[in-house]
Amino acid sequence: MDRMKKFLEFLREDDYDGALITPGSNLYYLTGMAPQATEERLFLLLVNREGESVLIAPKLYENEVEWENSVFWSDEENPYEILERVLASLNLKGGKILVEDTMRASFLIHIERLLEDCTLYPLSVITREMRMRKDEKELSLMKKAAEIADKVFYEIISRDLVGKSEKQIALEIEFLIRELADGVSFSPIVASGKNAANPHHTPSERKIRPGDFVILDFGAKYEGYCSDITRTIAIGHPNEKLKEIYEVVKEAQESAFQSVREGIKAKDVDRAARDYISERGYGNYFIHRTGHGLGLEVHEEPYISQTNERILEKGMTFTIEPGIYIPNLGGVRIEDDVAVEKKGKRLTNAERELVIL
Amino acid sequence: MDRMKKFLEFLREDDYDGALITPGSNLYYLTGMAPQATEERLFLLLVNREGESVLIAPKLYENEVEWENSVFWSDEENPYEILERVLASLNLKGGKILVEDTMRASFLIHIERLLEDCTLYPLSVITREMRMRKDEKELSLMKKAAEIADKVFYEIISRDLVGKSEKQIALEIEFLIRELADGVSFSPIVASGKNAANPHHTPSERKIRPGDFVILDFGAKYEGYCSDITRTIAIGHPNEKLKEIYEVVKEAQESAFQSVREGIKAKDVDRAARDYISERGYGNYFIHRTGHGLGLEVHEEPYISQTNERILEKGMTFTIEPGIYIPNLGGVRIEDDVAVEKKGKRLTNAERELVIL
Repeated sequence: MDRMKKFLEFLREDDYDGALITPGSNLYYLTGMAPQATEERLFLLLVNREGESVLIAPKLYENEVEWENSVFWSDEENPYEILERVLASLNLKGGKILVEDTMRASFLIHIERLLEDCTLYPLSVITREMRMRKDEKELSLMKKAAEIADKVFYEIISRDLVGKSEKQIALEIEFLIRELADGVSFSPIVASGKNAANPHHTPSERKIRPGDFVILDFGAKYEGYCSDITRTIAIGHPNEKLKEIYEVVKEAQESAFQSVREGIKAKDVDRAARDYISERGYGNYFIHRTGHGLGLEVHEEPYISQTNERILEKGMTFTIEPGIYIPNLGGVRIEDDVAVEKKGKRLTNAERELVIL
Repeated sequence: MDRMKKFLEFLREDDYDGALITPGSNLYYLTGMAPQATEERLFLLLVNREGESVLIAPKLYENEVEWENSVFWSDEENPYEILERVLASLNLKGGKILVEDTMRASFLIHIERLLEDCTLYPLSVITREMRMRKDEKELSLMKKAAEIADKVFYEIISRDLVGKSEKQIALEIEFLIRELADGVSFSPIVASGKNAANPHHTPSERKIRPGDFVILDFGAKYEGYCSDITRTIAIGHPNEKLKEIYEVVKEAQESAFQSVREGIKAKDVDRAARDYISERGYGNYFIHRTGHGLGLEVHEEPYISQTNERILEKGMTFTIEPGIYIPNLGGVRIEDDVAVEKKGKRLTNAERELVIL
């Protein structure tokens, strides 16, 4: 497995003694294994610096996953007794150990008792560097996930939304996505009227009515890869102030997109959007970063923030999603997924002009 | 907060020095706080044995959660610097520390570096004992969650299922639940024909056809509390063998239900179902435990297994779900949620006689 080899090179280079990997996007990225629902039972891939590895997994998964060296444990066995033997066989007794970031404390507490003198580090110190740079295959899956998001946007705006609650629309979006993709990359956000002034709004029982601006923020997961799109639509005759704001956000988003190229810093993209909005007098109302990386997770490196010095490289993928939020009035956000080539390339392409329903 | 007081009594009684609680069902149970989506940012309630506590939470949640002593940190701050000060103020330097079972390793790794000489224990050693015994309020919420499951069963069997895929039906069930409840307590299982021989089947593209027995296994979450029901239905003229098996499972389930009373052991309930099935010659095809506790989580104590010596008490709630699985033929499982009073009381009540569509 190519990625595993590369991972081992980094591991040795940075002088780690081993890695303990539970299921999640890193395990999937490195090995292709994505067992469903293993929260309660120990499922652990152990790797040492010689590149030897052993999988410990519940018997339940015997037919689902495959690994060269593996031990499947049944419910009558204690997996930590097996782990103790495996640690010995791999000569993994302590030292600098990488641990999957999302491993549950209940596993880690037990594992630590079997290790002497060790210092633990999050696995992501290596995997985030690897995962940040997408290969052609990954980019084509992300493109697919983005196309599904576009499609769902056109489908949802073809429906009559007036009188439906935010919650109901969010549910409809989720089901549209789940019919076309593996699932949602996060719970859809629908924020209407004054609710749209809160970028972290949870869909409520508030019903859509004429005059509303409605923020729709959602994404699909396709073979593990995420998309994430936001469009803001107007219902009926649009408020003049929000219409003006819409144009500012649209141009800020375009300006950030145009700034993207190999070799600039992540913060330069943030600045392009932020400067545009500040010059129009709305700087205080753009209250979050311009974007975030996405891939197997919907939030990952590179973050497009005011302080991120990360140099953009070919194959990096992230969102560009400036927004303006006016308390007691509403808000506008426009978000696309972008891949870095020589310049930037948009993966999402749904209509960016103001859609009035 | 009453539960918090009781928790502190247990904590002192068992001589722990403190607890570190991240969001999840324990935090909700003890404090009522259920912040949405905090995976990436440190949200931590610290408690010492004197009963003093401090909440460290992202600024984002300032208007959503309330705690007597709290520090909200902004994205420009390092939450672990704040944590260091809070640990000192609580005089929590090490010792026997309880840690929320589901805390992410990435948090725990950082927290451990700030503690000297400590031994960590899963928080659930205390909370599972507390949560196992439901009070009246909790039981009424569980009843509500169970009623929603019943309702969804009647609605889904009123639809024409022939020609639909397992995946499609699972999606429809989920949609029905989410319109009536907070959400699903787990991803619905739909297993048809030969697929029903695998109790852990994931809904596939297989389409329902006449002659199938179809296992439907799903549950709703209502104000945090879970239901979990399984019914097996027949499509068209039922296979004679499966019809016979259906009756065995139904009687085994009834027999386990009738065995429930205060003071017996969890394993006695398992035995009632297992003995009935074994006597009919299907013992080798009943390949899982008879049930599991449920409450804020869909799998919790008390587990209804062959070995669990736990004495049943008033207020405990669990599933009774025997099944028979015949490779290359199919399977039958019937599951109800049951609360312990003097005797058992079923919370789910959907039709248990074979439904033939």
